[in-house]
Amino acid sequence: MDLTCIMTSFPHKQKILNDPVYGFIDMPTGINLEIVEHPWFQRLRHIRQLGLTFMVYPGAIHTRFQHVIGAYYLINQAISEIRKKGFDISPAEEEALGTAILLHDIGHGPFSHALEYSLLDGVSHEVISQAIMQKLNGMYEGKLSMAIDIFRNQYHRLFLHQLISSQLDMDRLDYLKRDSFFTGVSEGIIGTERIIKMLTVHNDNLVVEAKGIYSIEKFLIARRLMYWQVYLHKTVLSSEQLLIKIIKRARQLIHNGQSLFAPPALSYFLSHPIAASEFISENKVFEGKTAIELFNAIDDNDIFTSVKVWQSSNDIVLSTLCKMLMERRLLKIEMQRNSFNKDIVTQQKKEVAQHMKISEEDAEYFVFTEKTTHYAYNPDDERINILHKNDDLQDISEASDILNISVLSKNVIKHFFCYPKL
Amino acid sequence: MDLTCIMTSFPHKQKILNDPVYGFIDMPTGINLEIVEHPWFQRLRHIRQLGLTFMVYPGAIHTRFQHVIGAYYLINQAISEIRKKGFDISPAEEEALGTAILLHDIGHGPFSHALEYSLLDGVSHEVISQAIMQKLNGMYEGKLSMAIDIFRNQYHRLFLHQLISSQLDMDRLDYLKRDSFFTGVSEGIIGTERIIKMLTVHNDNLVVEAKGIYSIEKFLIARRLMYWQVYLHKTVLSSEQLLIKIIKRARQLIHNGQSLFAPPALSYFLSHPIAASEFISENKVFEGKTAIELFNAIDDNDIFTSVKVWQSSNDIVLSTLCKMLMERRLLKIEMQRNSFNKDIVTQQKKEVAQHMKISEEDAEYFVFTEKTTHYAYNPDDERINILHKNDDLQDISEASDILNISVLSKNVIKHFFCYPKL
Amino acid sequence: MDLTCIMTSFPHKQKILNDPVYGFIDMPTGINLEIVEHPWFQRLRHIRQLGLTFMVYPGAIHTRFQHVIGAYYLINQAISEIRKKGFDISPAEEEALGTAILLHDIGHGPFSHALEYSLLDGVSHEVISQAIMQKLNGMYEGKLSMAIDIFRNQYHRLFLHQLISSQLDMDRLDYLKRDSFFTGVSEGIIGTERIIKMLTVHNDNLVVEAKGIYSIEKFLIARRLMYWQVYLHKTVLSSEQLLIKIIKRARQLIHNGQSLFAPPALSYFLSHPIAASEFISENKVFEGKTAIELFNAIDDNDIFTSVKVWQSSNDIVLSTLCKMLMERRLLKIEMQRNSFNKDIVTQQKKEVAQHMKISEEDAEYFVFTEKTTHYAYNPDDERINILHKNDDLQDISEASDILNISVLSKNVIKHFFCYPKL
Amino acid sequence: MDLTCIMTSFPHKQKILNDPVYGFIDMPTGINLEIVEHPWFQRLRHIRQLGLTFMVYPGAIHTRFQHVIGAYYLINQAISEIRKKGFDISPAEEEALGTAILLHDIGHGPFSHALEYSLLDGVSHEVISQAIMQKLNGMYEGKLSMAIDIFRNQYHRLFLHQLISSQLDMDRLDYLKRDSFFTGVSEGIIGTERIIKMLTVHNDNLVVEAKGIYSIEKFLIARRLMYWQVYLHKTVLSSEQLLIKIIKRARQLIHNGQSLFAPPALSYFLSHPIAASEFISENKVFEGKTAIELFNAIDDNDIFTSVKVWQSSNDIVLSTLCKMLMERRLLKIEMQRNSFNKDIVTQQKKEVAQHMKISEEDAEYFVFTEKTTHYAYNPDDERINILHKNDDLQDISEASDILNISVLSKNVIKHFFCYPKL
Repeated sequence: MDLTCIMTSFPHKQKILNDPVYGFIDMPTGINLEIVEHPWFQRLRHIRQLGLTFMVYPGAIHTRFQHVIGAYYLINQAISEIRKKGFDISPAEEEALGTAILLHDIGHGPFSHALEYSLLDGVSHEVISQAIMQKLNGMYEGKLSMAIDIFRNQYHRLFLHQLISSQLDMDRLDYLKRDSFFTGVSEGIIGTERIIKMLTVHNDNLVVEAKGIYSIEKFLIARRLMYWQVYLHKTVLSSEQLLIKIIKRARQLIHNGQSLFAPPALSYFLSHPIAASEFISENKVFEGKTAIELFNAIDDNDIFTSVKVWQSSNDIVLSTLCKMLMERRLLKIEMQRNSFNKDIVTQQKKEVAQHMKISEEDAEYFVFTEKTTHYAYNPDDERINILHKNDDLQDISEASDILNISVLSKNVIKHFFCYPKL
Repeated sequence: MDLTCIMTSFPHKQKILNDPVYGFIDMPTGINLEIVEHPWFQRLRHIRQLGLTFMVYPGAIHTRFQHVIGAYYLINQAISEIRKKGFDISPAEEEALGTAILLHDIGHGPFSHALEYSLLDGVSHEVISQAIMQKLNGMYEGKLSMAIDIFRNQYHRLFLHQLISSQLDMDRLDYLKRDSFFTGVSEGIIGTERIIKMLTVHNDNLVVEAKGIYSIEKFLIARRLMYWQVYLHKTVLSSEQLLIKIIKRARQLIHNGQSLFAPPALSYFLSHPIAASEFISENKVFEGKTAIELFNAIDDNDIFTSVKVWQSSNDIVLSTLCKMLMERRLLKIEMQRNSFNKDIVTQQKKEVAQHMKISEEDAEYFVFTEKTTHYAYNPDDERINILHKNDDLQDISEASDILNISVLSKNVIKHFFCYPKL
Repeated sequence: MDLTCIMTSFPHKQKILNDPVYGFIDMPTGINLEIVEHPWFQRLRHIRQLGLTFMVYPGAIHTRFQHVIGAYYLINQAISEIRKKGFDISPAEEEALGTAILLHDIGHGPFSHALEYSLLDGVSHEVISQAIMQKLNGMYEGKLSMAIDIFRNQYHRLFLHQLISSQLDMDRLDYLKRDSFFTGVSEGIIGTERIIKMLTVHNDNLVVEAKGIYSIEKFLIARRLMYWQVYLHKTVLSSEQLLIKIIKRARQLIHNGQSLFAPPALSYFLSHPIAASEFISENKVFEGKTAIELFNAIDDNDIFTSVKVWQSSNDIVLSTLCKMLMERRLLKIEMQRNSFNKDIVTQQKKEVAQHMKISEEDAEYFVFTEKTTHYAYNPDDERINILHKNDDLQDISEASDILNISVLSKNVIKHFFCYPKL
Repeated sequence: MDLTCIMTSFPHKQKILNDPVYGFIDMPTGINLEIVEHPWFQRLRHIRQLGLTFMVYPGAIHTRFQHVIGAYYLINQAISEIRKKGFDISPAEEEALGTAILLHDIGHGPFSHALEYSLLDGVSHEVISQAIMQKLNGMYEGKLSMAIDIFRNQYHRLFLHQLISSQLDMDRLDYLKRDSFFTGVSEGIIGTERIIKMLTVHNDNLVVEAKGIYSIEKFLIARRLMYWQVYLHKTVLSSEQLLIKIIKRARQLIHNGQSLFAPPALSYFLSHPIAASEFISENKVFEGKTAIELFNAIDDNDIFTSVKVWQSSNDIVLSTLCKMLMERRLLKIEMQRNSFNKDIVTQQKKEVAQHMKISEEDAEYFVFTEKTTHYAYNPDDERINILHKNDDLQDISEASDILNISVLSKNVIKHFFCYPKL
């Protein structure tokens, strides 16, 4: 495979890539370059990081490819900083950290958060990521073993895992900064450079120096702001629900024997229930392809291409849903802390059934309630620890006197109710 | 149609949109809001501004939707500035300028520059833009007439047209800035704010105040830099050629009676030659749809979805071309000022035919020469005029003593030669 | 007076100024231009906004002139936004708001916070600002009366005063953003544009729309971050204390009859105790100059020029203090929440006296304790009110569930202890 | 000396400084830290990089201290880049490069360009820089010898000198970027990161890779823009001329036996003619101080403090000039390519003499002509060489087809004529 042109090539060997967020990024070398060149990785160029968020923030069309390369850049910054502070990270560990961060999102399919349950029968992207990593490890003769150990937290040096996966990992630092940048919600932009300068290691754990407490407070506030202004934006939720209903209806129609346009790989997932074991053990083969191969053949393009075609379906439910998404006539959405009154929902469903001349059961595609949850800071997850000068460690929720602990660690549930404008 | 959620909604009526480049943008109102909400306009969300450039600059995935909204923002800045300087622009003219800039690119299809000749038989995007504008004007009962007059330079006030289409129009100001921003080639970023502050009107022409000469020099240098570093980047050209060959091969196979996967609208263009008249007079109808309707049904998603499926075609030429594009194993490309030696090209073709076990005719899909041309500043086009304090006008190529006139206005031709790495 | 060249002049009349923070700023016109051209206002070009902070953050050399022009820019943004929302602000009120914000800091002398007590005997900058405004109002024949009423909160429309002076006034918005920008502490940068977009008026009060709650949270967190990382930075405090001690010693020596180099106006303040009444009633005249005139004759230059000369004083206390400041060999400083043990301070004083061969009384110039206080959010001051959709108003400390109310409104006292490195 | 607080201190040893332009800068260590801590270097905190430019661009109050630290940052970037490309730079050479760039501007006094001839009798800042370097080299026991050799181009590796002093040296890269940043003339901002990435070494010369040609074109255009919009701005020139005349008049009055307020060191330079030899051989001593010591005692503060006091001088010429500067009522200025008609100048002088009731000789302080020259690119100086892929070297003026060679290398002379508004 030839990647000589993936980036503005300079006459010297190190390849460089232009990133709107960080400027120049040194591209990986060796095994990590091979991974980036692999078609399964190149696929990430066609998967938007934020799914349908671009329906609200037109700039949010950045891809998982960009995010993963950005996280790779940050992890190298962090490695360099941690080494400066006297902690050894071997070249093999450096390479494995690179591999792990490059592959941490490899199991994401198109519109991942929305379609995990409707298209993939609940097989999570984490399960698929691990299955793909194992598969690649076989292809690359075990060269990914240390990376997989670090990813799974089975490596003996804990802080390496924490750089990949914790409440202050390079994944989050990049996505918060990048999502703010591309949505144009500039207040979410975090000072990744300063946060990384504040990182150090204590008893094999990734911790933050006491001076960094204000930066961490700001990071948590920025994260919360992004949740409410972007990730859980009403219109984004409403768009995602529409897509979920579209896929659900398409699967139902196919299940009932109807024939629907779709590219072959997507057809497979629409017409076959799938189990995690099919990814892990590759025990089923469809037209010569395993679940992993089929999965890697679909991206955002297949979904939109199909939805566009389905606008002309003779099933009124499917065609209406598809037109609503493509023409941006979305469902209305109300949000509240408590669950919605069932009578109102039932009443609305009846009206829609009558108005659209469909059954009340089918009206559920247009009138429904759902809920979403979100932790500002999850105390059960890997914690953000502050290292005081006297070597005491303190969780950020205790170290910060301004942030309200109980709120930070509270599971925020929002109920929402969707229905069409009649 | 409901656009209430297209942007972060504020309790007051004016809708606002977040743009990574300019920050907050006031959304259009009235007829211009209706245009933005039209499905044909929403389609631009799925057409990348820079086609396949993201194969080299991963950030270059911004869409024509974003660009057009940005140009709309700039034209409002320019209107406000020109009014401040004492030139009257009526509310009707203001609205028409908005309409004209919103629709100036409406005729762009997917990978426009690449596919104009292979998919659309040479019907240019300008022709299609005008056809669509006329169609919309009918739908909106003549409300777009002034905009169309301005667009076609048939309106009596010349400078209004020049804001839409000239060597210093708002289209160029936005795309240069935006393309620089998203590619990460930050040196191409131009000071749109300052340039707009320097605009004024003289004898009904859009001109630049003498103080702005350095800004214009910088604009022309930045534009040139973007040409060589982005628009005419070797790898971008090579990717585009691959896509052109793919479409050409697909059409040939279909012409030969083979059946190929494709969404219905794309199928139509692959299997039918098309003429400009079909867009203008809508004299042909295919499965109930006119050429304009079919055209508006295709976008980037259809191309990529089809190319992905065609990777499994049993035509070795098509499947190889498609795999090369999707896996980013592009053709090698050499560029030079003179045309290439035919013997070398023929020799290369023979080797490829032999190596791939295909005919020499088919080898032309992989081995070929092409050329591209580019004007840094086209003296035959609308000129950039500098207004001196004594009211003298001077073309920038004369007003600037540092820019080399003969080079600026010279048509630069680059020949390139593509061939596979065997 | 001629200000034609204060800014890059454009051929049209509106003068424009380049600001590194906001870009182009339209300069004031009419009476407000006259105010900017007045020598007392031009004096602000020589008074650093952050006093000695540049000893820690070398970029923090921006002046009060820049800040005041920036706040003037923001108030015009706010006026335009509030008008868009349907609230009337008359041209006279607009001009008066401009005057009020331009003059709100006019009473600041050099190193204001540090020297208010040592050089000016506790006459506050607010008192002097008002005295100067009154004086100018006389000169300009009462044209500043409405501005003064707004400034003093004696105008009948409350929200106008709140734009000038409240916990979310344009003064704070500018200085937080500007101080972050010039110190390079980029995390303190606030989204002034978004905050201003969220402002509205409710029952004649300036309030924030509910959507703006996250921005306000972020503003308060950024402000707190600036306090701890910049305004109350240990080394800044230590530098300021050194300057306070220098002025105190100089005054003492002069009081004892010694002659010290100083420019005439500074000499006056060093050798005469001064009372607020001298500014207000201008009842004393010194060599033909009133207190206001003398005050307006001193700026940062006089202080540094004198301190440099005093390095050669034959008073060992004064010369040592001055050398320490100029050569940046500052006093060590310790900070803690509780007051310091007196015995340790006394012991340190003795050692210094012995080491420097000075009296214990004189050693107090080098060994001393002080305290500083700071409110993150002062509930007794003008509040930041959030306007909910149902028209309910709520204080931000209640509206925000993440910010800890009790901490926000707690008066933080920090004690510090300074002493030389022997 | 204690510099522990010069920057936000992190618990690890490497000191870090916040720079508004580049973000975090690692502070020097070892001998280079000692140099930064030296009072003669700290003095640069009080010398504005752009002299009186802040009279036009209020943000342009950045200091030579900031610039030198910025250039130090860039030279470390360049060293790292050049090493990556396989060229060896020893640790001793790295340190010497740091020393050389830190000290390259150490001989600049207050308002250097303006006062070199009026206050310093033509002893250039280059001469003084070298004298101070030699003096420091003595103090630091020869540790600066390699740095001095590099600075003087007496070191055997030519490209090291070119990093310090050439048409593409780190000095220029920093000052162009920094001056653009602080003036707010954002179009002058150059991509230092990209230019440095393009540097390499060829036959011991610093050259630019062929790919960098567009960046260099942009650099030269940006530089030219800064010249005309900032460095040679009419109002800046007019302010500087006023200061030159003030110093000239003050020296004349003192020469005539009048006594004028001034701090002692400035007094010395006002009352004594000075020769380069006094700096080099330190052969004269004034009140125990050598020329170098006296020189290091003056900065911008002394000039402004004195000019303010001189506003009350009983010499009408001096007091008028000083008031004009402090109150920003500057001389009018006309610029043209040819010299001015002598009759007009004479006539103007007569009118001023009559109007101000002064002699025609004294009127020359207010009415005079001057000229300024500027090379966009000086072909006699160290050239900017482009390295082509075939190892050919070409001067940028030949390598670039868009830049007009003859103009680039033409010495631009502008004549200007100053006179008061009567």
